[in-house]
Amino acid sequence: MAGRNEEDLKDVTLLGNQGTSYSFDYDPDVLETFDNQHPNRDYFVKFNCPEFTTLCPKTGQPDFATIYISYIPDVKMVESKSLKLYLFSFRNHGGFHEDAVNVIMNDLIELMDPRYIEVWGKFTPRGGISIDPWCNYGKPDTKYEQMADHRLMNHDLYPEKIDNR
Amino acid sequence: MAGRNEEDLKDVTLLGNQGTSYSFDYDPDVLETFDNQHPNRDYFVKFNCPEFTTLCPKTGQPDFATIYISYIPDVKMVESKSLKLYLFSFRNHGGFHEDAVNVIMNDLIELMDPRYIEVWGKFTPRGGISIDPWCNYGKPDTKYEQMADHRLMNHDLYPEKIDNR
Amino acid sequence: MAGRNEEDLKDVTLLGNQGTSYSFDYDPDVLETFDNQHPNRDYFVKFNCPEFTTLCPKTGQPDFATIYISYIPDVKMVESKSLKLYLFSFRNHGGFHEDAVNVIMNDLIELMDPRYIEVWGKFTPRGGISIDPWCNYGKPDTKYEQMADHRLMNHDLYPEKIDNR
Amino acid sequence: MAGRNEEDLKDVTLLGNQGTSYSFDYDPDVLETFDNQHPNRDYFVKFNCPEFTTLCPKTGQPDFATIYISYIPDVKMVESKSLKLYLFSFRNHGGFHEDAVNVIMNDLIELMDPRYIEVWGKFTPRGGISIDPWCNYGKPDTKYEQMADHRLMNHDLYPEKIDNR
Amino acid sequence: MAGRNEEDLKDVTLLGNQGTSYSFDYDPDVLETFDNQHPNRDYFVKFNCPEFTTLCPKTGQPDFATIYISYIPDVKMVESKSLKLYLFSFRNHGGFHEDAVNVIMNDLIELMDPRYIEVWGKFTPRGGISIDPWCNYGKPDTKYEQMADHRLMNHDLYPEKIDNR
Amino acid sequence: MAGRNEEDLKDVTLLGNQGTSYSFDYDPDVLETFDNQHPNRDYFVKFNCPEFTTLCPKTGQPDFATIYISYIPDVKMVESKSLKLYLFSFRNHGGFHEDAVNVIMNDLIELMDPRYIEVWGKFTPRGGISIDPWCNYGKPDTKYEQMADHRLMNHDLYPEKIDNR
Amino acid sequence: MAGRNEEDLKDVTLLGNQGTSYSFDYDPDVLETFDNQHPNRDYFVKFNCPEFTTLCPKTGQPDFATIYISYIPDVKMVESKSLKLYLFSFRNHGGFHEDAVNVIMNDLIELMDPRYIEVWGKFTPRGGISIDPWCNYGKPDTKYEQMADHRLMNHDLYPEKIDNR
Amino acid sequence: MAGRNEEDLKDVTLLGNQGTSYSFDYDPDVLETFDNQHPNRDYFVKFNCPEFTTLCPKTGQPDFATIYISYIPDVKMVESKSLKLYLFSFRNHGGFHEDAVNVIMNDLIELMDPRYIEVWGKFTPRGGISIDPWCNYGKPDTKYEQMADHRLMNHDLYPEKIDNR
Amino acid sequence: MAGRNEEDLKDVTLLGNQGTSYSFDYDPDVLETFDNQHPNRDYFVKFNCPEFTTLCPKTGQPDFATIYISYIPDVKMVESKSLKLYLFSFRNHGGFHEDAVNVIMNDLIELMDPRYIEVWGKFTPRGGISIDPWCNYGKPDTKYEQMADHRLMNHDLYPEKIDNR
Amino acid sequence: MAGRNEEDLKDVTLLGNQGTSYSFDYDPDVLETFDNQHPNRDYFVKFNCPEFTTLCPKTGQPDFATIYISYIPDVKMVESKSLKLYLFSFRNHGGFHEDAVNVIMNDLIELMDPRYIEVWGKFTPRGGISIDPWCNYGKPDTKYEQMADHRLMNHDLYPEKIDNR
Ligand SMILES: [Ca+2]
Ligand SMILES: [Ca+2]
Ligand SMILES: [Ca+2]
Ligand SMILES: [Ca+2]
Ligand SMILES: [Ca+2]
Ligand SMILES: [Ca+2]
Ligand SMILES: [Ca+2]
Ligand SMILES: [Ca+2]
Ligand SMILES: [Ca+2]
Ligand SMILES: [Ca+2]
Ligand SMILES: [Ca+2]
Ligand SMILES: [Ca+2]
Ligand SMILES: [Ca+2]
Ligand SMILES: [Ca+2]
Ligand SMILES: [Ca+2]
Ligand SMILES: [Ca+2]
Repeated sequence: MAGRNEEDLKDVTLLGNQGTSYSFDYDPDVLETFDNQHPNRDYFVKFNCPEFTTLCPKTGQPDFATIYISYIPDVKMVESKSLKLYLFSFRNHGGFHEDAVNVIMNDLIELMDPRYIEVWGKFTPRGGISIDPWCNYGKPDTKYEQMADHRLMNHDLYPEKIDNR
Repeated sequence: MAGRNEEDLKDVTLLGNQGTSYSFDYDPDVLETFDNQHPNRDYFVKFNCPEFTTLCPKTGQPDFATIYISYIPDVKMVESKSLKLYLFSFRNHGGFHEDAVNVIMNDLIELMDPRYIEVWGKFTPRGGISIDPWCNYGKPDTKYEQMADHRLMNHDLYPEKIDNR
Repeated sequence: MAGRNEEDLKDVTLLGNQGTSYSFDYDPDVLETFDNQHPNRDYFVKFNCPEFTTLCPKTGQPDFATIYISYIPDVKMVESKSLKLYLFSFRNHGGFHEDAVNVIMNDLIELMDPRYIEVWGKFTPRGGISIDPWCNYGKPDTKYEQMADHRLMNHDLYPEKIDNR
Repeated sequence: MAGRNEEDLKDVTLLGNQGTSYSFDYDPDVLETFDNQHPNRDYFVKFNCPEFTTLCPKTGQPDFATIYISYIPDVKMVESKSLKLYLFSFRNHGGFHEDAVNVIMNDLIELMDPRYIEVWGKFTPRGGISIDPWCNYGKPDTKYEQMADHRLMNHDLYPEKIDNR
Repeated sequence: MAGRNEEDLKDVTLLGNQGTSYSFDYDPDVLETFDNQHPNRDYFVKFNCPEFTTLCPKTGQPDFATIYISYIPDVKMVESKSLKLYLFSFRNHGGFHEDAVNVIMNDLIELMDPRYIEVWGKFTPRGGISIDPWCNYGKPDTKYEQMADHRLMNHDLYPEKIDNR
Repeated sequence: MAGRNEEDLKDVTLLGNQGTSYSFDYDPDVLETFDNQHPNRDYFVKFNCPEFTTLCPKTGQPDFATIYISYIPDVKMVESKSLKLYLFSFRNHGGFHEDAVNVIMNDLIELMDPRYIEVWGKFTPRGGISIDPWCNYGKPDTKYEQMADHRLMNHDLYPEKIDNR
Repeated sequence: MAGRNEEDLKDVTLLGNQGTSYSFDYDPDVLETFDNQHPNRDYFVKFNCPEFTTLCPKTGQPDFATIYISYIPDVKMVESKSLKLYLFSFRNHGGFHEDAVNVIMNDLIELMDPRYIEVWGKFTPRGGISIDPWCNYGKPDTKYEQMADHRLMNHDLYPEKIDNR
Repeated sequence: MAGRNEEDLKDVTLLGNQGTSYSFDYDPDVLETFDNQHPNRDYFVKFNCPEFTTLCPKTGQPDFATIYISYIPDVKMVESKSLKLYLFSFRNHGGFHEDAVNVIMNDLIELMDPRYIEVWGKFTPRGGISIDPWCNYGKPDTKYEQMADHRLMNHDLYPEKIDNR
Repeated sequence: MAGRNEEDLKDVTLLGNQGTSYSFDYDPDVLETFDNQHPNRDYFVKFNCPEFTTLCPKTGQPDFATIYISYIPDVKMVESKSLKLYLFSFRNHGGFHEDAVNVIMNDLIELMDPRYIEVWGKFTPRGGISIDPWCNYGKPDTKYEQMADHRLMNHDLYPEKIDNR
Repeated sequence: MAGRNEEDLKDVTLLGNQGTSYSFDYDPDVLETFDNQHPNRDYFVKFNCPEFTTLCPKTGQPDFATIYISYIPDVKMVESKSLKLYLFSFRNHGGFHEDAVNVIMNDLIELMDPRYIEVWGKFTPRGGISIDPWCNYGKPDTKYEQMADHRLMNHDLYPEKIDNR
């Protein structure tokens, strides 16, 4: 098994970097990539992000969510510490729940040009109702576009049990 | 990431509105919409509503349910605070469990004209039996109609374990 | 939302009826129906029945099960209180687990002539083994017959974890 | 085992009574009792009431809770159907969460004069915070008063895990 | 390790007996005992009985419960198959939930004269409310009587979460 | 509902038979069948068997598993008490986990000639790793053979969470 | 049941107030109180606050916790919306986990002068380890001081299972 | 931290021993000990043993249990591989559930002369009822004897939920 | 049922071998195979491996994961003790999470030439985010290649709930 | 709320330090402290450490555990990043489970001189049995020594359910 050498990781500036400063304003520029070592294979990488918080655009009060991001890489893969910083950058930013997952997915498509990607946000309730938006994407005019259709069609047939406690 | 500006939210009169008055009689007119900012993409929005209560049409006693609503928006999207008020409006209203989910779905179709929608009600037991109706809809003569068939076909293959405790 | 009027409920004699007497001998005649108000739509109704008990045909000792019944109505729908009484009527009746779910489904087909129906029994163990029979049905020569095949094909791919405690 | 005869149950007017009408305004008068058949013994009776709803006194919007009531009877015991109706009577009534459990306990003390009683309310969140008030009571100048102190002292050392979902 | 010989088990007539007939009318006479082989030691034996059913004395409809019985034996111990038959004998018998646990405990005290015993019934809900009665007993004028007081004092400080599903 | 008469059960010699002797050496001959009363219908019967134990062929130490058996009967059905005895007969027998599920399935195919069958073994860990073999079978040259392919293709897409505790 | 009148609620300025502005800098002045209507009784009020976030004082990155606050009121009680705003005010503030729970408790003691109070913080892990500080307080020279000792002595005898997933 | 040297482990003959042979007849002689390195401190060691099986003394059929053993060592401690072999030795042995836990505890007292010990057996159900015996012991005329009384007094105030599935 | 004889197991040198030495440097050579006894049948074997640890390639600190490996054997099958040793060999090795699952799968393909295989890694979080990579493979130009596509398409439609605790 | 200033944190050299090197040989010297800001108050700090691994002293193979550490600080408090490094240092070290928790506690006593401390290790099973040692300590000749006795006396009255999966 070949490990990752310094050359492989030359674009990874944040991982293990002690002097990291944090931006709490929306900033997709913080995202970094490294190269996929297994480009001949389709495989999934999923990020579980239960520590996501943003602000309500109308009332200004904090919202909380768990964000699940899952994708099939093409050439580039998002580095996880930079993803953490990117998600931090929503902390003082306002947006509708439905828009947040779309924006996150758009930025990751822009960054990585993945074969397939999906983003699911599961928010805590306001007024007794919680909102869980989900979006996905497959590279146009490839089999991944059909894959996106297929997964949309079969999305969340079993909603998790929610009792607000 | 473009946020929502005032123009976008001009039809949203309830969110953040302090003087809201609550109607506890069935009232679909309370529902409000805002515009979908991602109309070129199919994506799901799900509402988890564990605080739903209505009255039995024959005995008059309260019934309780969790309502799950999941849809793919077209042009319009239902605003969540108005949805809360709409669900409140069943509080003093009587209806069969099987009818409630159909009525909710009909009203949301009327309101939003969504590409796809489904509604699941999970009620607490009466006489040792609980009832869970589920309905769905895809815009006629589109691929979403086939999607509705597909999801009906695959609905709830794994009923949750229920022991009435 | 139109509620149910008296005319709609004229065949419902048991719901809210105080003087109900209970038969504990198998009796499908106790089942009652009301009319489907949404006949143009395919939708599911599921009954969760964790309080089912019968007698072993050979040893005479009590058996216990949770019965899940799920169907797509056509013209008629089974009223839930009458269903409760029907299930009570197995209390002093003997039968194999495998037969019970088939009999229940047969009686409900006879009663309602549904588009689709399935019945799952999950029994408590005897001698360290528990038995979970499942049967389904789609109206012959309709798409629901194919739906029944499809759901049989995909039945219970994930058996629940059982440890007899 | 002696069952309950008609004489024993003469004060029980609601159980099995078909023509029950429901009051949704606070009404402690609906509560009924029957006699304790085991007065020489201290024992607990607990009611689990997950279908409790009331209105916020300031905003008027619905609140939901599970109420747990546990007591040691003296001469009189509360009949469960009348308890159900009593709890229904908070449906259109406004009150702070902290007051509701105290009022319920006061009314049951007034009704039954129990040796010991405790009431726990577990409400769904508003603004991301949920409130769980708990009160108890032991008959003054008896060992049950000390029992109340002891149980207060040891109350809820292990708060349940809450994540608002 | 000395096993049980035939002499030890001579009073055990039901265990392994194929021709057992079942009584579904309340019958404490079916209970059998065997001798405690460890009388110099205080130890607990608990029976978990989730398959208990009886009839409501007023409406005649079936009730279901899980019964937990826990005791410290003195000279005699209840044989488990006879306990099963005894619990079967409530099947067609009517009684209040609060009475059932007291009767079961009384019969077992009569049978075994145990040092300590407690019985907990956890019933399924009727009208949205479930009832869980609990009683205990320590041999009068022994330390077990104080033990009974202590356990009453500390009973069920953490009621299980109930949501009627 | 026609029950089972004596004629139906004439091949069932073990159920309710008190004098059963147990073999702890592998013995498929103990298996018995009864006739399927619903041969015109495809339906599933599942056995949950959490009390399975065998010996490691190389070290001789005990292994433990939960075995799930699920099948669609044709003419004959396996009687559950004989299945229990059959599974007992692995108690002192040695075999690899991967072989055990294949052998059980082969024996049941030989016995019943079912339309479809699958067997899943979930073993406890040795050396920190647990093994879960799964096999299935559809009657050759029937639609059940295709069903077997389909279920293999979709097997266990969601492995259960295992942490060895 | 006497509800809360306007006089009772005159110090409650935030609840139901639409124009609330949020401070994300530590600000105990936002806390408000209302009067205890049951001062003759000792009872508990618990707040479950799963949406708490602050910043690490050394690295500046966000930390997340669930905060449980439980107290016995004396004359004054903290109003829950003001508590929400107070907890919001830690959002951009840095502090050690161990200090945060002490500061929250100190501020609430200053505000309400409660008979008893305890605060538990359960943080998400950093570097594979999570920290759960807990502090409590009883009014000096009262029985509540002894109560605090007693609860400290018995704190968290059963740590919850943590696997970082 | 001083590790264990060869001298410390000279009595440990089974751990890491490849040629171990297994006895499936009751055999307490297989138990081995090593020395407690922390004799000045009272501390608990607990063994979780979910793979315990034995035979019913009357019917000969297998029983299964999880055994929990917890003790405070004095001079000697039981080595875990030898404990495994000891528990294996019940495999073909018959005994009542109530006797098994007493015998295991007696053998471990004989072996280790511990300060305190307790043994809990949780068996799978037969005939719908499961049995959970528990015994404990404190060295006579020491504070551990009082500890045993205290733990007996507080044993299992919260029986786990059992539904036989 | 034919057991495994010595001839069958001649290549299995590690199972039951006491003198095993452990390599904690990446070493695929430790893997051993035995022959598939059921080569005419497609069936799955799954390994649950919750005790996997490796080192971060950039920071050098330990990472932990549960690895799930599932495959359809062709001629050769991996022996589980050698798999354990192989996974041990990552203990002091550095690699990205995304690479680890690909490397494990590549090595097992090289070893066994299976018909189908998939590997899922579920890692504990770093910086609040956890990563779960998943890859699969079907033998090229066989139906198993299509099976791999199908399973990729349907992978993880229901991500498990993650809250980092 | 006073935050921590630089002076307070001058002994904290590891937190936020990017160039940290990791020792995988047992090394208590890596532990660092900071000062308790609330020395006049008794309060608990608990560390949940599910990522602990060490080596078996006799076989050399890896063991895994979750370690729970809970203490009442006096003057000094252990810094969590240094605790992480300390626990890492067991990675290539051999020791019995029973010794590991004692050693960890001894080192933390040496480091912090706490008022009270307890350490619980919950290990994964070997040979079907898992071991959970627990030790505690109160400063001699203080009330914390009695607290240690009290908590020992009440330790783990409810062992968690273990099934090795
Ligand atoms: Ca950049
Ligand atoms: Ca929940
Ligand atoms: Ca309108
Ligand atoms: Ca339940
Ligand atoms: Ca279970
Ligand atoms: Ca929750
Ligand atoms: Ca008798
Ligand atoms: Ca529940
Ligand atoms: Ca035969
Ligand atoms: Ca587990
Ligand atoms: Ca102020
Ligand atoms: Ca967890
Ligand atoms: Ca269970
Ligand atoms: Ca979790
Ligand atoms: Ca140092
Ligand atoms: Ca488990």
